[in-house]
Amino acid sequence: MKIHGRHYRTIWLDDDGWGVIVIDQTRLPFHFETVRLATAEAAAHAIRHMTVRGAPLIGATAAYGVALALRVDASDAALEQALALLGATRPTAVNLHWALARMRERLIGLPEAERVGAAYAEAGAICDEDVALCRAIGEHGLGVIREIAEKKPAGEPVNILTHCNAGWLATVDWGTALAPIYLAHDAGIPVHVWVDETRPRNQGAALSAYELGSHGVPHAVIVDNAGGHLMQHGQVDMVIVGTDRTTATGDVANKIGTYLKALAAKDNGVPFYVALPSPTIDWRLADGLKEIPIEERAGREVTHLFGQGEDGSTGFFQVAAPGSPACNPAFDVTPARLVTGLITERGIAPASAEGLARLFPEMTSGVAA
Amino acid sequence: MKIHGRHYRTIWLDDDGWGVIVIDQTRLPFHFETVRLATAEAAAHAIRHMTVRGAPLIGATAAYGVALALRVDASDAALEQALALLGATRPTAVNLHWALARMRERLIGLPEAERVGAAYAEAGAICDEDVALCRAIGEHGLGVIREIAEKKPAGEPVNILTHCNAGWLATVDWGTALAPIYLAHDAGIPVHVWVDETRPRNQGAALSAYELGSHGVPHAVIVDNAGGHLMQHGQVDMVIVGTDRTTATGDVANKIGTYLKALAAKDNGVPFYVALPSPTIDWRLADGLKEIPIEERAGREVTHLFGQGEDGSTGFFQVAAPGSPACNPAFDVTPARLVTGLITERGIAPASAEGLARLFPEMTSGVAA
Repeated sequence: MKIHGRHYRTIWLDDDGWGVIVIDQTRLPFHFETVRLATAEAAAHAIRHMTVRGAPLIGATAAYGVALALRVDASDAALEQALALLGATRPTAVNLHWALARMRERLIGLPEAERVGAAYAEAGAICDEDVALCRAIGEHGLGVIREIAEKKPAGEPVNILTHCNAGWLATVDWGTALAPIYLAHDAGIPVHVWVDETRPRNQGAALSAYELGSHGVPHAVIVDNAGGHLMQHGQVDMVIVGTDRTTATGDVANKIGTYLKALAAKDNGVPFYVALPSPTIDWRLADGLKEIPIEERAGREVTHLFGQGEDGSTGFFQVAAPGSPACNPAFDVTPARLVTGLITERGIAPASAEGLARLFPEMTSGVAA
Repeated sequence: MKIHGRHYRTIWLDDDGWGVIVIDQTRLPFHFETVRLATAEAAAHAIRHMTVRGAPLIGATAAYGVALALRVDASDAALEQALALLGATRPTAVNLHWALARMRERLIGLPEAERVGAAYAEAGAICDEDVALCRAIGEHGLGVIREIAEKKPAGEPVNILTHCNAGWLATVDWGTALAPIYLAHDAGIPVHVWVDETRPRNQGAALSAYELGSHGVPHAVIVDNAGGHLMQHGQVDMVIVGTDRTTATGDVANKIGTYLKALAAKDNGVPFYVALPSPTIDWRLADGLKEIPIEERAGREVTHLFGQGEDGSTGFFQVAAPGSPACNPAFDVTPARLVTGLITERGIAPASAEGLARLFPEMTSGVAA
């Protein structure tokens, strides 16, 4: 997507053809800076310290990290060492391990002399495939936005509410929930995005707002409390969010607070869509509320926020009463009954076992009903 | 209520019997400091700059401001001047104008020599009546908490979620939504309060958490996004919130985000109560969504937060992407259908025209059905 009028991905090769450049996301939204990664160690550091974040982007960075390691030493031992180093950075990230396993499989059988070239090619393919997946989600979601636009008076924007950041900064390009919005904007359909702040980590106010503003998409930041009121007053035409994990029956785990917006959408007849690449569907699960474990994170994320002071310095500051404890569940589960549709790379499925099975027939043997 | 083991009201007379002391709420939750008001100008300044806040406390402070003015000059002209000065501080505050009108009515017919004494007595009566009103609300709410406690295994706390600050800091003592909680705690019923942070102004994390912590009530701060998840998992036994304005039919305007919690409570079978002194019922209104105007406040309240940096200094910090606009509706309306009961000083009414009419028969002539 665009920043200052120039097209960017979140990761790309430097002009020398081997150094890897990423956007330093720890500096956003206050500073746009890039970092050059020249070693596997630097790639591991970037993942561990969240210079890069978002499952697809983490996987892509790790894949390039393998290529960087092999430039120095293309032996089996060096390959295994790089895989171990990169795999230890964010132990629970599914895409990370998927990307590293794919790199190993591609490289282990090759002669050493061919490995560096093949590693760069495979890392590039992982990036390109992610872009294609997100773009396909975007195209399917675009159809929904276009339909709503056609029912509104000409020139009136389609008001879309989103929660958290499922945008291009979390992927290689386009994003998931934001992909349809970018495509609609680029196609000249007037859109306006209500950006939920998304406490406690503020990925909406900080990252989604930054993305949309940089690409020129009209938007406004709102507190997480405001969406229901806007829906009651007809100011939201649709909701699109991402997901971290979806059951085979269409229950959706996503950033804490998603469930509240889904309830409000249902209460006000507002369509509620979830955008997801099919790898985030967990085909073994049938009941999201009972089966998806919810991560409890540190209370300090609630009591202290990251921001920029009036002197321009950035840091953490306390907002809650000193000494008060905090509880911080990071995700919640939105039951399928509240979801209008799941926007996947193959099309839009009803949020049900039958709906998903129709789009992904090869995945559905042995799934709980 | 108690701070550091000592009982406080939010406003009281100094040892000399005429200076008025208030808690400087602009310094909370990071510093507990009191301010002595010795003139009507000082009282007006305290209201305007939110040293004191909360409708009942603003009214009480204004009443004492009149008394302070009359100490200097008890003439009709001085009285009218003081009423005008104090009335101009927060033009939309209903209690402020009610308290000033009451002071004028009590004082204008008296000889000048009797006015100062009568003014102090009337201001004191306004405070005492507010305390009695809140305490009565607390007693009725206590019954609900006790019933829930009796159904739980012995010793297990009643988990109560609240939104914003409807506590003693907004009144003279006890508060409205928090009054039943304080009474339950003082009666030895184990309670635990989920304190919604309440973005954008964080009155929950800053003030409710401060109040509860100071009085020794177990609690935890949560982001506004978390309540639905906690209800899905049986971790909330009831919700109690306050209200700024309630229709004769039981629709409730309260801090933005209240509606989302009411939806989640309904979806999970959690009782949802609203605590209110009857003067906040607007008997002329029958449809809260259509008839209650919602204040739009500055976007800067969304993009910038008040907090304490690591060096101990307090100030405002930017959290949203620079340049992104924000939209800031301050209240929302919870339809009566989502409200389990209205806890008033006369008892608990169903949230309906009939329910309120039964408790307040003298108010119900000519109300829309």
